[in-house]
Amino acid sequence: MINTGTELLLGDVLNTHLRFVAREIFPLGLRIERQLSVPDGAAIGEALAESMAFDVVFVTGGLGPTTDDVTREAIAALFGLEFEENVEIANGIRHRLTSRGWKLTDRILRQALVPKGATILPNHYGTAPGLYFPKNPATASPHIFALPGPPRELHPMFVESVLPILRDIASDKAPHEFRTYRIAGMGESLVEEAVGAQILAIPGIELGYCARPGEVDLRLVGDPESIARADAILQSVLKDSIFSLAKEELEHVVVRMLTDRRETIATAESCTGGLLAHRLTNVPGASKVFPGGYVVYANEVKASALGLDPALIRKHGAVSKEIATAMAEAARTRAETTHALATTGIAGPTGGSEKKPVGTVYIALASDCASTLVRHFNFASDRETFKQMASQAALNLLREQLLARD
Amino acid sequence: MINTGTELLLGDVLNTHLRFVAREIFPLGLRIERQLSVPDGAAIGEALAESMAFDVVFVTGGLGPTTDDVTREAIAALFGLEFEENVEIANGIRHRLTSRGWKLTDRILRQALVPKGATILPNHYGTAPGLYFPKNPATASPHIFALPGPPRELHPMFVESVLPILRDIASDKAPHEFRTYRIAGMGESLVEEAVGAQILAIPGIELGYCARPGEVDLRLVGDPESIARADAILQSVLKDSIFSLAKEELEHVVVRMLTDRRETIATAESCTGGLLAHRLTNVPGASKVFPGGYVVYANEVKASALGLDPALIRKHGAVSKEIATAMAEAARTRAETTHALATTGIAGPTGGSEKKPVGTVYIALASDCASTLVRHFNFASDRETFKQMASQAALNLLREQLLARD
Repeated sequence: MINTGTELLLGDVLNTHLRFVAREIFPLGLRIERQLSVPDGAAIGEALAESMAFDVVFVTGGLGPTTDDVTREAIAALFGLEFEENVEIANGIRHRLTSRGWKLTDRILRQALVPKGATILPNHYGTAPGLYFPKNPATASPHIFALPGPPRELHPMFVESVLPILRDIASDKAPHEFRTYRIAGMGESLVEEAVGAQILAIPGIELGYCARPGEVDLRLVGDPESIARADAILQSVLKDSIFSLAKEELEHVVVRMLTDRRETIATAESCTGGLLAHRLTNVPGASKVFPGGYVVYANEVKASALGLDPALIRKHGAVSKEIATAMAEAARTRAETTHALATTGIAGPTGGSEKKPVGTVYIALASDCASTLVRHFNFASDRETFKQMASQAALNLLREQLLARD
Repeated sequence: MINTGTELLLGDVLNTHLRFVAREIFPLGLRIERQLSVPDGAAIGEALAESMAFDVVFVTGGLGPTTDDVTREAIAALFGLEFEENVEIANGIRHRLTSRGWKLTDRILRQALVPKGATILPNHYGTAPGLYFPKNPATASPHIFALPGPPRELHPMFVESVLPILRDIASDKAPHEFRTYRIAGMGESLVEEAVGAQILAIPGIELGYCARPGEVDLRLVGDPESIARADAILQSVLKDSIFSLAKEELEHVVVRMLTDRRETIATAESCTGGLLAHRLTNVPGASKVFPGGYVVYANEVKASALGLDPALIRKHGAVSKEIATAMAEAARTRAETTHALATTGIAGPTGGSEKKPVGTVYIALASDCASTLVRHFNFASDRETFKQMASQAALNLLREQLLARD
């Protein structure tokens, strides 16, 4: 895929073409092997000349009426094609302009000049049509699609006109299967150590990872049989660490589990500072399972909002398993919920000590009919990542508890 | 610029690196001439080999601990460099992992192997450091920067470590002056209507806008004299709507203003569900000005946590200026703060009525020595945007109040 446009290289416009096209062609068993952005002008022809070894080349942009739009010319020059006026396009442009009372210029009519052998791809949202040049063994040229740059012109043209042609081109390909496992409670390298070698030993499997704070996506691509073999390994080794096969956020999974069980959750947050409540309330329908929470940053508010005994805080320190436990139990009692999660820790950058360094966090989960669980972690990092990892660990603790109670 | 990552070519992740880097280097008089996305693996080396004619090459991704991360190896192979263990990186990784109680594996320690001659670019947000290989006439190699793929690691590293090196490399180029005005309380088109024509009438000025929920960045590029003329217009027309010239988040501005005044804030959130507390506690030092807050989603918790009279809620409805006022005043009294902000509204997608449609929000600010302010807005949108806009309006109401009290 070649994306042309100086605006892309200046950072004025975000290039969304790769993501759009890659997702559209994936179900056909096709994928983009290489994507290139070049400025308007001579670089377009050079990029095309470099791309002759591929099966299909998409070029976006450079089809308009201005002097820097040279995609048509570059293709024609590369394969020695002559131009001819396409009567249908010329009439369409004439009709479009005269009906608006605009002047018809040679420059605009340039868009009706089409290299010989091209198939026209209609553009219902602009004047410049797309062009399709079939693979030509005589000139050793691949299938080339020249497409408009603006997404509102490109997207409908791609779906209406390009996909049907690609379906013919790719009719011999076995479609890829694609699966994403979203994993909590294990770092990227721990996941790879646990399953990497076994998965890579399966022929025809591609394996990839994408890590975010507190979660890892493991991605498989392959034929259905290989995917099934890999799936059996992943499910048996990673078990409940896999929290979604549908790229869901952890808070969506937890809210759904609570909703299904008709159970509720409250929060008592010190170091996560409201993030836990924020994540839960991002889920539509959260009000059914989350009546509310307490952000108790200062010790005075731990006492006034949750009724914690200041002597207990002095004795153990605010960042301790005892205070995490007391916070969770008080929140559950006060909000009258099935469960309550509490977080207390040291986000940093200051406030750490030798015994409790920056990154220390205690997470407690109080539940009815069960003793309160407490976990200790160290998520030394910047403040926002620390908060994200602590909230992730808290939601994952609740998820594991819900699974264990089933 | 070479962006590596199979996830980019599968359309799993939107590639934002080009836009980010292009904008960062523009003020130095530098621009990207060519950008290439390739999958993980052998293609990285081929892409590098093709790029030897440029002055500077950025490579993103492929620096992590897994087998598909081969950027270091590709650079070393291309220029015949040997690897050596960097003691500082190895110790950093050891410290990071052991402090979290995670297992240290050979795979993770791979990230401490560095090709000879590379300068380390510290990574404060992940384990893999960036690498800088200076231009080397002996091997005809350009300046090469190998940078991490995750934006939250790449962006701070680029600003802290890459830009200073680029500034030396590009010291002979005429720099553009570049200024960003961050504006709250006005939409993008309102900003353009207020100042657009006057700014564009100044010769040699480039003007751009970037809108996010509840705020707009107005961006100027030009020579110093034109920028000074534009600045005078912007300051006199937009006045206090400009809340930062340093691309700060609104919560940072508000926490600084409160810190300077030795004043404090509490929160009582219904529809923002903890986001307001989360944003305040993202700011280092927030504990000095924010003792805590209440997330009162259900009416029962509005009563139990804030002492609101259930009869008052029944009379006016939970989404009303009366309840917003009562929430703010109760939070201020209970948390013993100078100010308290309250939000109540209908985030949707359900729960709206004809009189109070989805998007309705009331924001109240209670302060000492002043009567409580209430504002009414409609931010009909998806849930997360609604919450972001409501929290933005709340923080901006506090900012305006603090300015007015000076």
